[in-house]
Amino acid sequence: MMTKPLLQIALDSTDLASAVTIANSVESFVDVIEVGTILAFAEGMSAVRTLRKRHPNHILVCDMKTTDGGAILARMAFEAGANWITVSAAAHVATIAACKKVADEFSGEIQIELYGRWTLDDAKTWVDMGIRQAIYHRSRDAELAGVNWTPDDLNRMRALSELGIDVSITGGIVPEDIHLFAGINAKTLIAGRALATATGKATAEALRREIDTYW
Amino acid sequence: MMTKPLLQIALDSTDLASAVTIANSVESFVDVIEVGTILAFAEGMSAVRTLRKRHPNHILVCDMKTTDGGAILARMAFEAGANWITVSAAAHVATIAACKKVADEFSGEIQIELYGRWTLDDAKTWVDMGIRQAIYHRSRDAELAGVNWTPDDLNRMRALSELGIDVSITGGIVPEDIHLFAGINAKTLIAGRALATATGKATAEALRREIDTYW
Repeated sequence: MMTKPLLQIALDSTDLASAVTIANSVESFVDVIEVGTILAFAEGMSAVRTLRKRHPNHILVCDMKTTDGGAILARMAFEAGANWITVSAAAHVATIAACKKVADEFSGEIQIELYGRWTLDDAKTWVDMGIRQAIYHRSRDAELAGVNWTPDDLNRMRALSELGIDVSITGGIVPEDIHLFAGINAKTLIAGRALATATGKATAEALRREIDTYW
Repeated sequence: MMTKPLLQIALDSTDLASAVTIANSVESFVDVIEVGTILAFAEGMSAVRTLRKRHPNHILVCDMKTTDGGAILARMAFEAGANWITVSAAAHVATIAACKKVADEFSGEIQIELYGRWTLDDAKTWVDMGIRQAIYHRSRDAELAGVNWTPDDLNRMRALSELGIDVSITGGIVPEDIHLFAGINAKTLIAGRALATATGKATAEALRREIDTYW
């Protein structure tokens, strides 16, 4: 059964004060708040702790793109108040398993970040491990290089969806893109700068209108 | 021409105070100090700034395993005082290029972290981009799962070496392993816990003796 995608803001400021300001300005129209990799590396887990305290009812994600040292990193993030953490598809399967084990302890969830040469066999392994979420994106740098959503992207999202994986989608998403993702079990649509500007609320509303049309 | 490998300590504490204590205790017998991913996510770039200030003459590495947002992350780390940063082999080539560009601006270096399904063709691309370092490791989690250095590991290190890439080697290295790496352009040998204990200095001396035998 397909549920409507949630809206997620990615906070990728290089300082916590800016991130706090943005989170305040968007909290009424987003479901999920993400401590982006940039913010997490800039300010450490205090960013997660601060946003957890300020937004106790939002789902909070720590985007660590965990690649190794899974158990320690996962514990740090969940103890700081994250509900979900991201783990790189390029991590050793033992790392992914270590993260999942800690997530279970905190009733948290793992999201696989689909970087590198992952395959649908990998995805089956993740499903067998009990993982139900993945993040599909245009790389921020690929996006800057002008790479757009391709039919291959959409086919791979659909294949993941069929395996039972809810896909979060990110990479410069605008309301005009939403129809592309129809038929996909989309967990969240993630935006950063697009929601953080003066027109952020209007953009969120436009995204929700499109979501209502296609889900 | 082959130079002797440097010794590198990976600081993977979850708090800066512990990392500072360890760095103080090993500074006389290591060449390179690494702010590990765990420490960087725990404390943010203040960990890099603090260790830069306390150890102005050591090479300082920030192990970000950068996977996206390359330009911003690289700038953060180099501005905080890092000399080298790590970039995941699973990152989009645009991300790697973005990191390299920032590194050049700071006369810094990029180390490719060999996670995921990288190929020697990828490695040629890195060399063409001017990158001269990579990090070869047993995943910390794979190591915990009992996976040892294999002939395949050693063959891949030698192939990288032949392409002109200096390899840093990590993953529970002990003096008894050093002979395995003979003939490889090893930039650094990285240890964490092994150098941080009461017998750390003796371990460093044993590693150097083995290095003198094989390089």
